[in-house]
Amino acid sequence: MSNKNKFDIEHLGAPKYKSPMELGKEPGDQLFDFINESNRLVFDLSVDHFHHCLSTGVQPDCMEMAGPREDLFFDAKNVTAAIVTCGGLCPGINNVIRGVVMALHYFYGVKRIIGVPYGYEGLNPEKGHELVELTPEKVNNIHQFGGTFLGSSRGGQDVEIMVDTLEANNVDMLFAIGGDGTLKGVNAIGEEIGRRNAKISVVGIPKTIDNDIDLIDESFGFETAFDVASPILRDAHNEATGAYNGISIIKLMGRDSGFIAASAALAMPVVNFVLIPEMHFSLDGERGFLKALEHRLEQKKHAVIVVAEGAGQHLFQEREEVKDASGNVQHQDIGVFLKEQISAYFKSKETPVTIKYIDPSYIVRCAPANSSDSVYCSRLAYHAVHGAMAGKTKFVASRVNNKYVYIPISEVTKKRKKIDLEDELWFSVLQSTGQPFFLS
Amino acid sequence: MSNKNKFDIEHLGAPKYKSPMELGKEPGDQLFDFINESNRLVFDLSVDHFHHCLSTGVQPDCMEMAGPREDLFFDAKNVTAAIVTCGGLCPGINNVIRGVVMALHYFYGVKRIIGVPYGYEGLNPEKGHELVELTPEKVNNIHQFGGTFLGSSRGGQDVEIMVDTLEANNVDMLFAIGGDGTLKGVNAIGEEIGRRNAKISVVGIPKTIDNDIDLIDESFGFETAFDVASPILRDAHNEATGAYNGISIIKLMGRDSGFIAASAALAMPVVNFVLIPEMHFSLDGERGFLKALEHRLEQKKHAVIVVAEGAGQHLFQEREEVKDASGNVQHQDIGVFLKEQISAYFKSKETPVTIKYIDPSYIVRCAPANSSDSVYCSRLAYHAVHGAMAGKTKFVASRVNNKYVYIPISEVTKKRKKIDLEDELWFSVLQSTGQPFFLS
Amino acid sequence: MSNKNKFDIEHLGAPKYKSPMELGKEPGDQLFDFINESNRLVFDLSVDHFHHCLSTGVQPDCMEMAGPREDLFFDAKNVTAAIVTCGGLCPGINNVIRGVVMALHYFYGVKRIIGVPYGYEGLNPEKGHELVELTPEKVNNIHQFGGTFLGSSRGGQDVEIMVDTLEANNVDMLFAIGGDGTLKGVNAIGEEIGRRNAKISVVGIPKTIDNDIDLIDESFGFETAFDVASPILRDAHNEATGAYNGISIIKLMGRDSGFIAASAALAMPVVNFVLIPEMHFSLDGERGFLKALEHRLEQKKHAVIVVAEGAGQHLFQEREEVKDASGNVQHQDIGVFLKEQISAYFKSKETPVTIKYIDPSYIVRCAPANSSDSVYCSRLAYHAVHGAMAGKTKFVASRVNNKYVYIPISEVTKKRKKIDLEDELWFSVLQSTGQPFFLS
Amino acid sequence: MSNKNKFDIEHLGAPKYKSPMELGKEPGDQLFDFINESNRLVFDLSVDHFHHCLSTGVQPDCMEMAGPREDLFFDAKNVTAAIVTCGGLCPGINNVIRGVVMALHYFYGVKRIIGVPYGYEGLNPEKGHELVELTPEKVNNIHQFGGTFLGSSRGGQDVEIMVDTLEANNVDMLFAIGGDGTLKGVNAIGEEIGRRNAKISVVGIPKTIDNDIDLIDESFGFETAFDVASPILRDAHNEATGAYNGISIIKLMGRDSGFIAASAALAMPVVNFVLIPEMHFSLDGERGFLKALEHRLEQKKHAVIVVAEGAGQHLFQEREEVKDASGNVQHQDIGVFLKEQISAYFKSKETPVTIKYIDPSYIVRCAPANSSDSVYCSRLAYHAVHGAMAGKTKFVASRVNNKYVYIPISEVTKKRKKIDLEDELWFSVLQSTGQPFFLS
Repeated sequence: MSNKNKFDIEHLGAPKYKSPMELGKEPGDQLFDFINESNRLVFDLSVDHFHHCLSTGVQPDCMEMAGPREDLFFDAKNVTAAIVTCGGLCPGINNVIRGVVMALHYFYGVKRIIGVPYGYEGLNPEKGHELVELTPEKVNNIHQFGGTFLGSSRGGQDVEIMVDTLEANNVDMLFAIGGDGTLKGVNAIGEEIGRRNAKISVVGIPKTIDNDIDLIDESFGFETAFDVASPILRDAHNEATGAYNGISIIKLMGRDSGFIAASAALAMPVVNFVLIPEMHFSLDGERGFLKALEHRLEQKKHAVIVVAEGAGQHLFQEREEVKDASGNVQHQDIGVFLKEQISAYFKSKETPVTIKYIDPSYIVRCAPANSSDSVYCSRLAYHAVHGAMAGKTKFVASRVNNKYVYIPISEVTKKRKKIDLEDELWFSVLQSTGQPFFLS
Repeated sequence: MSNKNKFDIEHLGAPKYKSPMELGKEPGDQLFDFINESNRLVFDLSVDHFHHCLSTGVQPDCMEMAGPREDLFFDAKNVTAAIVTCGGLCPGINNVIRGVVMALHYFYGVKRIIGVPYGYEGLNPEKGHELVELTPEKVNNIHQFGGTFLGSSRGGQDVEIMVDTLEANNVDMLFAIGGDGTLKGVNAIGEEIGRRNAKISVVGIPKTIDNDIDLIDESFGFETAFDVASPILRDAHNEATGAYNGISIIKLMGRDSGFIAASAALAMPVVNFVLIPEMHFSLDGERGFLKALEHRLEQKKHAVIVVAEGAGQHLFQEREEVKDASGNVQHQDIGVFLKEQISAYFKSKETPVTIKYIDPSYIVRCAPANSSDSVYCSRLAYHAVHGAMAGKTKFVASRVNNKYVYIPISEVTKKRKKIDLEDELWFSVLQSTGQPFFLS
Repeated sequence: MSNKNKFDIEHLGAPKYKSPMELGKEPGDQLFDFINESNRLVFDLSVDHFHHCLSTGVQPDCMEMAGPREDLFFDAKNVTAAIVTCGGLCPGINNVIRGVVMALHYFYGVKRIIGVPYGYEGLNPEKGHELVELTPEKVNNIHQFGGTFLGSSRGGQDVEIMVDTLEANNVDMLFAIGGDGTLKGVNAIGEEIGRRNAKISVVGIPKTIDNDIDLIDESFGFETAFDVASPILRDAHNEATGAYNGISIIKLMGRDSGFIAASAALAMPVVNFVLIPEMHFSLDGERGFLKALEHRLEQKKHAVIVVAEGAGQHLFQEREEVKDASGNVQHQDIGVFLKEQISAYFKSKETPVTIKYIDPSYIVRCAPANSSDSVYCSRLAYHAVHGAMAGKTKFVASRVNNKYVYIPISEVTKKRKKIDLEDELWFSVLQSTGQPFFLS
Repeated sequence: MSNKNKFDIEHLGAPKYKSPMELGKEPGDQLFDFINESNRLVFDLSVDHFHHCLSTGVQPDCMEMAGPREDLFFDAKNVTAAIVTCGGLCPGINNVIRGVVMALHYFYGVKRIIGVPYGYEGLNPEKGHELVELTPEKVNNIHQFGGTFLGSSRGGQDVEIMVDTLEANNVDMLFAIGGDGTLKGVNAIGEEIGRRNAKISVVGIPKTIDNDIDLIDESFGFETAFDVASPILRDAHNEATGAYNGISIIKLMGRDSGFIAASAALAMPVVNFVLIPEMHFSLDGERGFLKALEHRLEQKKHAVIVVAEGAGQHLFQEREEVKDASGNVQHQDIGVFLKEQISAYFKSKETPVTIKYIDPSYIVRCAPANSSDSVYCSRLAYHAVHGAMAGKTKFVASRVNNKYVYIPISEVTKKRKKIDLEDELWFSVLQSTGQPFFLS
């Protein structure tokens, strides 16, 4: 069988240097070993898939294990690395920046690390932002703060100009921390680099608070996001019970995927309805949302509703899509819309209700990483550096099936990850909230 | 000199019973002593006031010390007490409810405590809410949660109907937890009770997250409010620095008084502008707010603005006042307005800015009380109970000059407390933020 | 190939009833589907293992997917379930209790749920603890608190007596939340039940704050543990820098496994030394710990040391093992020992040092679950219930390779999970702290 | 009447310069006014004191209002200021450092600010610590961290040597942040300066987590201390209820004064016994502590005990006092002692108990300041600077009767503030815990 598969990572060329890291090479020496390139991990765990491969002779899709390689493409001590952060904020960005700088400096002895300010804009000289030098001292405490130390911006810049900037600054490797658009952007940069036969490795570290990057277990910052949202739900519940027929509507992030809404509702089981982009629901009708809400109020005199920002877009009359600078579809505000619809419905029924609308989005996204994400960010950063040093390019470092792996950027950007309504996560939410399976 | 002054509290009548509490009566017995009615505290601490009294022979205004009295008006074991919570949520309401129930039950052996549901509505039988019985078991854990265990509502009810309900339920004392409107309401109830010569004590425990009750040191929940707001400012600062010319606008509570905005900005010194209702500011002009903001961005490339919800109302064209059910003037949304004005201004200057608007109001107001407020709430509750048992009525329990006292409701509702722009608090804010003294 | 393997779960007998849950049965109906018993997951993800199976014809070890079954062994509406919590506290126990009660009541309509008080003692009538009835109302808020609502105790009780109690109370299924000893205990109960041919399902939900249950991704409460420890490390670092040659020693849980120490140090990268039970280290010698610490102080004038409670046991002269009531080896206090050794060492060198010893163990273990653990606990509880209803017995519900599965208790109790010193986790710790690979 | 009284502050000499601050000078100009030296505040608020003064013609003791003066002793732009932090850690030290630096730099234009490292040791050249220069940039973020940015040490140094160092470095004003010993130390420095007729202002900012500085409302860091302790008590309660006859003992700071123990117990009302240094209690006897504890366990099967570190010292056989480097009496560990005594008592009664001993001292003292303390620290720092600039010396800036004032160091160090067992605070604790008034 051929070992070639869709998860293979591109390399800039054959390795030329030995790693400066003093690691073990064989089991039993009580030392961590360099990762052998042939050591790969099966992607699909179902035994049915195993049998399918067995009967057809097809190789299973398998992924490269992340970690330090003994043979490097780059001469570590002469490397110039650059880091850029793009798109919206997400807890943990500073942890990743810090981890990349520390790994480059302490593990490989890299002397020159460039911080690109304000996202891809920082790679466009016309924008007038100056590149900054990064050192361990400068980034030592940044993990305790949310936001991005480097600044960010939305949207792309001309790929050729950006590669010009990288070349002009003798950059050997670019670490791009960002979401779907950013990853596609850095992949395009990698392709331009390839066309020029420049030897610059481009690496993505997937950042999306919505947790909608495909294939991977979860994206960093996501656990912090629902950890921060959780006490807000607890208190919103107290808002709801604090008034007769009190209704709290909390809008959480989730443009196309409802992971934060679903997980927050599971984490703080005071929620009665979760509305996510993946589900189709009606407001009206005997089995519609408003009727279900009315039923809830009759029973308990209060209700807590969590709605993902991208939910219920089909409910708006006007369908003209608006895109923001990153190319994401701009959504109408479903939270405000729901508040109005609920208010009108109960007014028509002459039922007094007290509705509170809470939008904690910015509070969630600029929070510092919690401990779990902090660990995750450090390890992602370390692996990203190991991969780049080995000359891999156009890949992301991530975790799949609870193991750290490298995956081609092109694979994780094929589509967005969404909640499968037939999967156990969504089922758990329905179980926990007690909301009807269908609202239409 | 006569001992009569404006801070004297009304009594239902002469005391008839001995307190069931076994306290000390004289210094040195290592036991807390009953409070002697003649033990009062001077209100105005300035030595000038002292000299004024001295030279004119006028008695200084002095307040009754709060605490348990040896002689009670009520026969504790036969008392029926009622508790009602009104108006918007504020951290600590449940702590006060718990404290009142515990004090009534454990200190005085009161057997019957009634919880009035959903504010003054609960005293109007037409509303159909049922009175609930409160016990130590029911309220044992409620201090760990925000909101109000009893439910609340805005606005008043017919005073005669409410007094009818109190009499019909043999209520001897009513504890009303609420703000300016609630206190005026319970005072009106007290007056109707007086007209009927009913022997029902009415007690207020001032609740206003805005900290705008006059005369008192501060209202409960206020410290929690800016404690909860503080990390939100910290993270909003990271939002601002995360973008080129990033501007974060955070709207905090404060309809007529800017205490939360001012204190939060002092607590988390990342704020560059604080706009409060007490100040008059212009957007335009060389010394106006927009110019100052522009100057700030030129210097630092980011800015954090805290605005109290009642600030800048003079800026709206339409001045038609709208009142909510509690009679509070409904304000236009200054936060949204500011965002639009700032956006337009920099658009006209062709300066790119990124503006984030954050409104954490509901997150702040339904948070659980922090430790300082928790202690304060317990002690307020205890004192309220002691005062009611002694037959005092139409008073609030509170803290003035760092001492617990009783004050007539009529005195604290004469006007709202506001930040004095010539006082040291506001000066500290100007010092801490570095914002210009005047923005007009 | 035979489908029989070591991960197969025992059943009480053939299913007799249809599930009362109304789920989907096929893909595409937008409804969660019942889990098909044949749907299993490969345990070992390495492609080498795949090839090994392929070439030898051996079936890979595979695990049963967790989730609701269409065919049940028990008649849900007539089931009596019991829950017991054993051993030391761990964040999330109450979440699991709540989840089990909610799932039994709402998903399956179970009417009778018994809470066993104070661990296995509660199944021994001689101890005099009374069984309690559990309802959704009783457990509704318990997830917000640490500890265990049911009480716990260490150590086992006579198995026959415990089974007698289960039978006397008509218990159909027993959910045991506990660590290694508890799981072995409930397995022994299951074996006695088998001997009696009683039809009682026994289910384990692995609880160990040390994260030392074998095979599974991680145990609940573990993430909370290092999340709570993390700011304590941050502040301990400030203690260290607050004095000249300041040294903070923080002892964290970890009798045989250093997962909490390692993860907390990764999460809060202010730590300079992590000492865990899995590593052998010397105090003395040129490459020993004390010399390394001295070197650190010379460089930076402060140091932060995290030590797992079970680390360095070889350093004690007296090797007499003492066991606690659960049979766990009682360890000498390595933290105090280290403090003494460090103090003596620098005294002998006439180097002034200031040492602070911090033991936050009880603060960590009785904290409420964070959001991630809260979600995990709910889902574990739901799956435990589904498995029991299907008549499975002597199994644990857990997560492996990021998927929810059932595993025989006997498999997870074969040995304790430890940190592999050659694995990437430990390597990350060494990278993050900069401590020498060996300290001997 | 003469205006001279014990609260008058010493001055270095007559003012020579005008303040560079542009403030108002009269009411109504919407600008904060310079503080008039004659504007003083009465210390004793009781109306009895007023009448006493009236009848005797004695002036009441009154304090100087803190705040900026129009006339300064120093030429602000040429000032060299120094800051030193001494003794144990306490939340808020960094906030005070930051506030002093910001006030000196921004309000007065001071160019040279010296940080003295590691307490008074830093003023003794023999110790070899180098003075550091402080700037707004260096201290900008330090308020978000516990500990002290400057380092601290215990104990004093030779006063003459310290004054030599101040003179050698042309220091004009020294801000000393520390407790009782530190304040006495800086007063002695001030006296030596006086003997030399050097013109150096010495200012104290009282720092004592125990809140035991006399006369003042409270010391900074104290509110944070019981705020941090409060959830630890909550969780310790869950430890206690998690075992049959579970007993949690939590030792909190408080060498001579039980304010933290008392306030934490009030803030988190799950505590059954509070033992403080001010009270005399017996273990044995019918009305002793152990009997009361036994009674509690019989009733409720669990108990939570908070003990201040300095409580029950009379219980130790050996009375040989040991002093630490600061001259504070070193206390035996009452927590461990209590645990042993309780264990022995119930063993003798053959009553099974489970005792957990929790000592969160270091976790409490190195926490970052909460919002209330953060505001307090900034304002204290500002006032300290204003006073020094005016040429005042040997004073502390603090808050009394809820107003900011200056007080001579000699007045606040006459004795330690303690809980008055006959005061309302302690009574509230007894009420809240339900513990007997006497335990002897």
